[in-house]
Amino acid sequence: MTRLKEYIKEITLPNFEVGKAMENYIDGLTKPVGSLGRLEDMVIQLAAVQGTHELDIDKKVIVIMCSDNGVYEEGISECPQEVTAQVTYNFTRGITGVNQLARFAHSDIHVVDVGVNVDIHHPDIHNRKISYGTANMTKGPAMKYEQALEAIWVGIEETEKLIEKGYSVIGTGEMGIGNTTTSAAVISMLTDTAVEKAVGKGAGATSRTLDRKVEAIYKAIEVNKPDAKDPIDVVAKVGGYDLAALAGVFLAAAKHRKVVVIDGVISIAAALIAYKLCPACREYMLASHLSQEVAMEAALKEMKLKAHFDLEMRLGEGSGCPIMFNLMEMAKYTLLGMGTFEDAGVDKEAYMNIWK
Amino acid sequence: MTRLKEYIKEITLPNFEVGKAMENYIDGLTKPVGSLGRLEDMVIQLAAVQGTHELDIDKKVIVIMCSDNGVYEEGISECPQEVTAQVTYNFTRGITGVNQLARFAHSDIHVVDVGVNVDIHHPDIHNRKISYGTANMTKGPAMKYEQALEAIWVGIEETEKLIEKGYSVIGTGEMGIGNTTTSAAVISMLTDTAVEKAVGKGAGATSRTLDRKVEAIYKAIEVNKPDAKDPIDVVAKVGGYDLAALAGVFLAAAKHRKVVVIDGVISIAAALIAYKLCPACREYMLASHLSQEVAMEAALKEMKLKAHFDLEMRLGEGSGCPIMFNLMEMAKYTLLGMGTFEDAGVDKEAYMNIWK
Repeated sequence: MTRLKEYIKEITLPNFEVGKAMENYIDGLTKPVGSLGRLEDMVIQLAAVQGTHELDIDKKVIVIMCSDNGVYEEGISECPQEVTAQVTYNFTRGITGVNQLARFAHSDIHVVDVGVNVDIHHPDIHNRKISYGTANMTKGPAMKYEQALEAIWVGIEETEKLIEKGYSVIGTGEMGIGNTTTSAAVISMLTDTAVEKAVGKGAGATSRTLDRKVEAIYKAIEVNKPDAKDPIDVVAKVGGYDLAALAGVFLAAAKHRKVVVIDGVISIAAALIAYKLCPACREYMLASHLSQEVAMEAALKEMKLKAHFDLEMRLGEGSGCPIMFNLMEMAKYTLLGMGTFEDAGVDKEAYMNIWK
Repeated sequence: MTRLKEYIKEITLPNFEVGKAMENYIDGLTKPVGSLGRLEDMVIQLAAVQGTHELDIDKKVIVIMCSDNGVYEEGISECPQEVTAQVTYNFTRGITGVNQLARFAHSDIHVVDVGVNVDIHHPDIHNRKISYGTANMTKGPAMKYEQALEAIWVGIEETEKLIEKGYSVIGTGEMGIGNTTTSAAVISMLTDTAVEKAVGKGAGATSRTLDRKVEAIYKAIEVNKPDAKDPIDVVAKVGGYDLAALAGVFLAAAKHRKVVVIDGVISIAAALIAYKLCPACREYMLASHLSQEVAMEAALKEMKLKAHFDLEMRLGEGSGCPIMFNLMEMAKYTLLGMGTFEDAGVDKEAYMNIWK
């Protein structure tokens, strides 16, 4: 824990002065001030995070954390548990939803096995398995406290490797049957939301399984009594390896001043863990879409974030990230490309000098 | 009017059978059924509209209708009226917001002067001027009934020219100081919404001008008593040339089975006129973003449409369309590119044959 505390201490706020300079620049373009709304906010945030007006969003990657959840035993999904391993493998075959979306957005993916319950041998699946799935959280903690820390470090280390390779924008994805249940449990605990209000259908639930999800979470909380003030205790007792590892991704992105994109409810549960460990992380995050899972709204509200689009998606895998990447590129292209100084009679060179 | 009635009679519903076949195809992909949400809906709608699974979204254009509004005299905007002509001209210089966004999305723009209050001579501005701006609607009708029809035909004819040139996806944009006021008036009339609830700040209003907008609309409605059951009477009395011409764009797109994208509040006021003239038009429309103008929500609700993203934009110009175009391309690329039949053990060739 001390090591993680030391790591978190090094996370600082973005350079808001550079952000402000970018805002001033944008306000000089020939359009009503602020009229490009959140496209402007995106570019301002990117400038603040990267500390420069020369926004680098060229190399993008989605980190996909894959793991199994013991709570599956409680009948919380209609989906066979083998799907976790199958889809994890399919990511390497390029045939899943996120593969296609990422290809369109010129983004790479980085698949990590942090706890799938079978062995998967593939050069493109990074084996950081902590165990063969978590334990059934309705009968005891999903994992040990040390395992949660270990998973967070997996996220940090994998992200740092990617940053070393030159990736400047990070997306977050996951695969793990049962992880909308663990995410709802974590969000319910960390936002003080009633379990019933945090549970949705996930990718494979019916109204029958919905009741089971609510019941399983209540039981897990009762049995384990997670400490809502300690996000690591929460993710260890009622979360999953994927959530803990993704929390590490958010921490590493913030530490290295990279923008990190939230996908859906699982991704935002992890973002919330990182935020509770270190509120400054929030400044590095961008929420992509509003997932169909109700817990997402509670988490967004808690972090004062707002989704950018609502496409009624509930696929997971990080599928919202490439759409957000594309929007970021569009924002950069538009706002840094609007040549409007001639009109306004302003000397562009002088204007641009403020960043040099 | 008879001529327009004849034209509208030829508008039919999309081919929902082809849409259904596309839906079946999508349901065969290796992902939870429906989990790509509105990306799926988009592709299904495109298939139904175009009557084929070979979706053609290559050639895209945004039709930008430019005109002035006599109601400007009432002090309803802080923006100088000359901005209409200036921005209309700037579209040809490639320096506006929509220029950059369109470039990113590989879309062309088509600028039409349907009633700017000065002469603009430029080969890229199509001169279809009906008059030098409308009259002040607080003192009498904004235009004659015949002029509203004429403007609708401008929209139809310009769109048909573009369709002949091979454009398969149409976007709608506008430029006209004062047109959030006319749009609010039209939407208020056609959705039976109280004027106060239909008026927003537009691109250049302050809280001071907000009151003037409400007052001007009330006065215009009182003076002209538009017939809410006749959308042409409404647009003639309290609308503008841009609105009428854009209504023509929506009608022509539906007639020729092309998908047509709604931008913001002005664009949707025009869509609403077309919808009231011919409800089938709705099936050809896609709402891009939720504009900051409150009247937009009333219009969306009336047509049972839903915006795809909320970027807090209030620029107009058609700026939401290129973002939607991009999303459509992403949807097509993803859903027609997910190679998933092997996994499912289904013969892809056999599956694809259903459309041949």
